[in-house]
Amino acid sequence: MPIEAAAYDDQNVFAKILRGELPAQKVYEDDKTLVIMDIMPRGDGHVLVIPKTPSRNILDIAEDDLNAVMKTVQTMAHAVVRAFDADGTTIQQFSESAGGQVVFHTHVHVIPRFAGVSLRPHTGEMADQAVLAANADKIRAALA
Amino acid sequence: MPIEAAAYDDQNVFAKILRGELPAQKVYEDDKTLVIMDIMPRGDGHVLVIPKTPSRNILDIAEDDLNAVMKTVQTMAHAVVRAFDADGTTIQQFSESAGGQVVFHTHVHVIPRFAGVSLRPHTGEMADQAVLAANADKIRAALA
Repeated sequence: MPIEAAAYDDQNVFAKILRGELPAQKVYEDDKTLVIMDIMPRGDGHVLVIPKTPSRNILDIAEDDLNAVMKTVQTMAHAVVRAFDADGTTIQQFSESAGGQVVFHTHVHVIPRFAGVSLRPHTGEMADQAVLAANADKIRAALA
Repeated sequence: MPIEAAAYDDQNVFAKILRGELPAQKVYEDDKTLVIMDIMPRGDGHVLVIPKTPSRNILDIAEDDLNAVMKTVQTMAHAVVRAFDADGTTIQQFSESAGGQVVFHTHVHVIPRFAGVSLRPHTGEMADQAVLAANADKIRAALA
């Protein structure tokens, strides 16, 4: 099947988080988007911006939802820079497995970056929940 | 100086391309955005979406320009998937050196991806112009 025709499956992890069926460390929310801590962060303070309306990835997201996501991405870029006194940000969006996508609900990665520090490899290892919670607190404080 | 206060310098390479002072392999253009082939592609068909209005990166781009860029990013994601029969896409935006940014005019990378093929490392080696031109032709054909 062409990837442009791939269907949305509402049993993905982010759909379950949006429905309140799974927990997440939430750092920001508005009417169109939710921001959570990535549980396998590639850097300290790595967050995910998720549209509330279902879409699979860049190939099927509606323009309104994409605009709302990017507005929140920009907000979060400023927030993580301030929260961690970061030297830069890396933003990534992966579509389909070959593109690096693991959860098939659109999401954008926002990762604070520091001079001389590489992104950690994607090992599949989960971060300590207390560390994630502390980082979430710092980002929420930077948003306030 | 805090990175959020970093100024735009109009002597960057993309500003020169936008002014016609440097050549580029152009694949798409509208009133707000330009798309060119990345001359150091991390995968075949790697393109860059550039807003015409000056901004440095995600930290200072205006909302209208960001929306225009992302609309073109989505158009290009579809185009590169069709042009190369790709299995996915990877989208990246880097802000400041620590974030991976090399040219300090906002740009978003759109890279077609293929099952089992990793991104090529960023070696700084330039691609063959004839190969870039052939890939640009394929993408333009997919847009038509």
